[in-house]
Amino acid sequence: MVKVAILGATGYTALELLKILLRNSEVEFTALTTRQDGSPPIHEIHQSLVGRLDVKCEDLSPREVSRRAEFVFCCLPHVASMEAVPALLDGGCRVVDLSADYRLNDAKVYEKWYGHAHTDAARLGKTVYGLPELWSERIPDQKLIANPGCYTSAAILGLAPFIKQGWIEPSGIIIDAKSGVSGSGRTPKLGTLFSECNESVAAYSVGNQHRHLPEIEQVLAEACGSLVEAIFTPHLVPMDRGIIATMYGRLKKPATDGQLIAAAREFYAGKPFVRIVDHLPTTKDSAYTNFCDITVRTARGQAIIISCLDNLIKGAAGVAVQNFNLMCGFPEATGLPI
Amino acid sequence: MVKVAILGATGYTALELLKILLRNSEVEFTALTTRQDGSPPIHEIHQSLVGRLDVKCEDLSPREVSRRAEFVFCCLPHVASMEAVPALLDGGCRVVDLSADYRLNDAKVYEKWYGHAHTDAARLGKTVYGLPELWSERIPDQKLIANPGCYTSAAILGLAPFIKQGWIEPSGIIIDAKSGVSGSGRTPKLGTLFSECNESVAAYSVGNQHRHLPEIEQVLAEACGSLVEAIFTPHLVPMDRGIIATMYGRLKKPATDGQLIAAAREFYAGKPFVRIVDHLPTTKDSAYTNFCDITVRTARGQAIIISCLDNLIKGAAGVAVQNFNLMCGFPEATGLPI
Amino acid sequence: MVKVAILGATGYTALELLKILLRNSEVEFTALTTRQDGSPPIHEIHQSLVGRLDVKCEDLSPREVSRRAEFVFCCLPHVASMEAVPALLDGGCRVVDLSADYRLNDAKVYEKWYGHAHTDAARLGKTVYGLPELWSERIPDQKLIANPGCYTSAAILGLAPFIKQGWIEPSGIIIDAKSGVSGSGRTPKLGTLFSECNESVAAYSVGNQHRHLPEIEQVLAEACGSLVEAIFTPHLVPMDRGIIATMYGRLKKPATDGQLIAAAREFYAGKPFVRIVDHLPTTKDSAYTNFCDITVRTARGQAIIISCLDNLIKGAAGVAVQNFNLMCGFPEATGLPI
Amino acid sequence: MVKVAILGATGYTALELLKILLRNSEVEFTALTTRQDGSPPIHEIHQSLVGRLDVKCEDLSPREVSRRAEFVFCCLPHVASMEAVPALLDGGCRVVDLSADYRLNDAKVYEKWYGHAHTDAARLGKTVYGLPELWSERIPDQKLIANPGCYTSAAILGLAPFIKQGWIEPSGIIIDAKSGVSGSGRTPKLGTLFSECNESVAAYSVGNQHRHLPEIEQVLAEACGSLVEAIFTPHLVPMDRGIIATMYGRLKKPATDGQLIAAAREFYAGKPFVRIVDHLPTTKDSAYTNFCDITVRTARGQAIIISCLDNLIKGAAGVAVQNFNLMCGFPEATGLPI
Repeated sequence: MVKVAILGATGYTALELLKILLRNSEVEFTALTTRQDGSPPIHEIHQSLVGRLDVKCEDLSPREVSRRAEFVFCCLPHVASMEAVPALLDGGCRVVDLSADYRLNDAKVYEKWYGHAHTDAARLGKTVYGLPELWSERIPDQKLIANPGCYTSAAILGLAPFIKQGWIEPSGIIIDAKSGVSGSGRTPKLGTLFSECNESVAAYSVGNQHRHLPEIEQVLAEACGSLVEAIFTPHLVPMDRGIIATMYGRLKKPATDGQLIAAAREFYAGKPFVRIVDHLPTTKDSAYTNFCDITVRTARGQAIIISCLDNLIKGAAGVAVQNFNLMCGFPEATGLPI
Repeated sequence: MVKVAILGATGYTALELLKILLRNSEVEFTALTTRQDGSPPIHEIHQSLVGRLDVKCEDLSPREVSRRAEFVFCCLPHVASMEAVPALLDGGCRVVDLSADYRLNDAKVYEKWYGHAHTDAARLGKTVYGLPELWSERIPDQKLIANPGCYTSAAILGLAPFIKQGWIEPSGIIIDAKSGVSGSGRTPKLGTLFSECNESVAAYSVGNQHRHLPEIEQVLAEACGSLVEAIFTPHLVPMDRGIIATMYGRLKKPATDGQLIAAAREFYAGKPFVRIVDHLPTTKDSAYTNFCDITVRTARGQAIIISCLDNLIKGAAGVAVQNFNLMCGFPEATGLPI
Repeated sequence: MVKVAILGATGYTALELLKILLRNSEVEFTALTTRQDGSPPIHEIHQSLVGRLDVKCEDLSPREVSRRAEFVFCCLPHVASMEAVPALLDGGCRVVDLSADYRLNDAKVYEKWYGHAHTDAARLGKTVYGLPELWSERIPDQKLIANPGCYTSAAILGLAPFIKQGWIEPSGIIIDAKSGVSGSGRTPKLGTLFSECNESVAAYSVGNQHRHLPEIEQVLAEACGSLVEAIFTPHLVPMDRGIIATMYGRLKKPATDGQLIAAAREFYAGKPFVRIVDHLPTTKDSAYTNFCDITVRTARGQAIIISCLDNLIKGAAGVAVQNFNLMCGFPEATGLPI
Repeated sequence: MVKVAILGATGYTALELLKILLRNSEVEFTALTTRQDGSPPIHEIHQSLVGRLDVKCEDLSPREVSRRAEFVFCCLPHVASMEAVPALLDGGCRVVDLSADYRLNDAKVYEKWYGHAHTDAARLGKTVYGLPELWSERIPDQKLIANPGCYTSAAILGLAPFIKQGWIEPSGIIIDAKSGVSGSGRTPKLGTLFSECNESVAAYSVGNQHRHLPEIEQVLAEACGSLVEAIFTPHLVPMDRGIIATMYGRLKKPATDGQLIAAAREFYAGKPFVRIVDHLPTTKDSAYTNFCDITVRTARGQAIIISCLDNLIKGAAGVAVQNFNLMCGFPEATGLPI
């Protein structure tokens, strides 16, 4: 049995984590946290868990969590996360951090994008970025994994084969991404009200203002060995689940659709959760699963890469459990919905 | 020109009022209010109005409003409304109040359902309920009109002909209503987040707990001359606009579908915004219009009455403008979308 | 290994069957059928299965199917089903029939509601209705099971405890049900186009015209030992998955909410897929799972029962797999999503 | 009074035409056509028109139509349109053709993209493309106007100012567009079923395969005086109404957001239906109106242009009525929803 805690158990990602981990009989939930008063049972917060899990959701310090658990999924917002993680690690826990706090290598870059000085900067640049499709061999031994962002995973998984293998220019890339609303979290805000989002598509953070951009560029650069520069435009779309990233990169040499698809297939050979497909994938094909579906087309000297995944699963909770499985010695796919 | 003010101009109903009244060239907006600081222009609050209306949204006292305007639409929440209305009337304004504060005849009933003592109880029982299809002749001379609720209008317009004419029993009525989410307002709440409402239908206030029920029973009793008793179950449905009320009443005498449809048609003869239809109406048929579409079927001794309307228009802003038009001497349909 | 065939593998229910059965490593798909030409692989028909299942979808006779498979899920439309089932049984297959062809006990009732004489009437009245929560003990030995309809299961599971135990009158029951659109199938029709259904709620088959009504009444009568008479109004709601049935029954004796909830809990003790809940369940709570969530409230002498399930899973494919599991000796919950 | 006919009156665009034109008291509908048998009244085909319009929908020849009407909106599919238009013109009608048949200048280009030889090629290159924001002065005298496509209008209106004024390169442009489902028409097809489209985003016609691309390039070249080359990726999004085109063009010279916004505002000065906005527009802002909302941002040497409109109104029926108004001497905005 692995004693597992979830910090920040009230959000949508935490709910998906709970559902996935409930399928692993070796997992025992020993701590679920919230800043809410009253220690409500988790099934009052997530009504769909009634009859499935009867654990309290408590306001616990990281130290108390580290006494109860050996493995922690940290679903706190950024800043809150870097305030909790050191104590968890000191307490002997292994941690998958789902916030952005340990994803960037450089404290100055972090401060620029998140508007807050990093209080645990010594761990930046040393924390492994938990995208198992790129470097699963680095993950098993880690104490702390920085779990990727949702847009980030869609973009990186789609672009990596073509940049790494020299098919497309690493600069001038355009990432036009569309996401379901659950990616915006469960805190009530005007912008995520049903009556605002429904029957509407909205671009936001236009012009290199979204925080996932430096993460995309950094990880692609590290994975591909070349400086990567992109323009990233996220859009909110009226659906619960799913991201589709439509990406445009200039071809460095002539290529057919077939060549590019074959190259991507080779790149991801043996990776169970990336499907390189011939058809045009929709977000619905991979919704409620841990798959990322990718295809590519060429036109007028450009590669048009399409990458789809479920933002809460492959884009958050699912990849977190992949990391957990690799770190704990479970088969990588344990519990993951396909 | 009529100088018009809207109190509480930031919500969805106020936006619909603005759009409808902008089609009447005799209307001039002289005051729009909000409790927000900074007096933003209304098109910053309702982005769809950019280029159409350039009036500030200010934090004004009722007294100040009454200096600027001769007609006021009060879109404040209950309690706030009864605190503002007396000053508006004293200042010489005519008022359509869209809250529930002047709908009920009895201060004790008000206090029971709204949990607050009524501070302007003298006007209860004397304020005309503004449903022009029932008593348009009472409206023109009023200083203050209580504008109906959205569920209420759908239910009353559907039931009135059949109770009044003695086709169905006035007790044991079942009102099963389904509403789009815009009816729940624009204040951020967990329950109206996109990710909570989308892909879900939820019953709420089950078992005679919804505040529209005493209003339905009171108005039907007054219109039909008999005590009315119903069970009312509202549901939230993942769409922007529209209410469908499916209602069940025991027939007092054998009747065919055709007889009942003909009776309803006669009841609403000359009423431009009620359409008695032979087919089964959908909420989409009347969405974005001021129509209420009604039909009826019989089965096993029951009449099954279906009534559809747009909750923000015929259920709120549209009927408010009907009242305004009648009070100001404009043709009843002025500006109203059909 | 169990050799399994699915007849009519192109629809939504078949897709759910495939996904559920893929989680049972003892299942081997030996035949998938369609009337489409060209024997396309199933992952061309259901794009989400790419990389998961590589079986052809063929135009096969029942005889050929019975040579290849020992267990058949029949997802054909009514009439087509009763033309195939006898040959399957003769060929030695065990069958779960998901059409309506074997649900009713009386050939005349069948003919009245389905407009077609029954060609295998000898099996009517002898085929077990596969609702394991009512009579799981009857199911294991059967060769043929009539799988319940989706509205039917929601209604029966909600009403059975209260009729059987004598809390409510078995007549005058009102069933007001709301379903997601996937229940209407995958055959292109005007009425199920996105642009017709979205942003709309529509009642249909109003006034005891829906074919699930005789099924509801027959099964409840058999389960509860008394004649049951209801009015059933289905509605189409703009969402993919889920049914909520809001049901109204006159109380035979005074009762509190708590008494009724306790009674239902006792009725379904030990049934893993029915959750009697204290809160008001939403369709989203049970979507993508095999749960049926039920609660009850009382008001003015009526019990208001709310029952929610996923129309494609607990309402179709999930209960079919429950039946399959019971018939094949697998644990009842094998493969079923919760 | 203008005697107006609509050919192909059963689709969504025709319904919007009817609703808009009903607001013009100078319009009389003298012919509505369908290939359906039985001459049903139009309000049986479009249920929302019940009580508003009582005209039959008949299977009429173009010759018969030209006897009854002086102005024809041709809402037939391509090919069918060019078979009807010559007879309408010969019969003395003036025509706005909403199909693609008269939009392209070159019969060979038409044949390449539409797979059908053009049978009225003499009119190609001579028919005015009805985008009043570009050349309203050309429209009033015409007998035949080619009404623009929906994606086309969104793209052209967004790009024209910046190409014409030399801010961005006319080649290497990326148009990533997202449309509501109503743009796909009312003919039942698997791809536009609710259960296929809902909760999904799908790219289609990827890699310069969509028929609106040659139209975009041709009109922009004519309007801007330079060869234009783009990559166009349309996406289907789960909503009824609206298109958002997110477009990327390389800046030819440094520019600020403010400069580009000011330039666009100047370009469209005096055009009532284009709103150049400072904020990021959403599709909901212009839904159900004839507005096109446009803004622009700069990043890393690119202009990112965002253009939103309602695909059925400004993208089809609304601009058709703008053309009609200009041709008939009505004020340009007559009847148009804002």
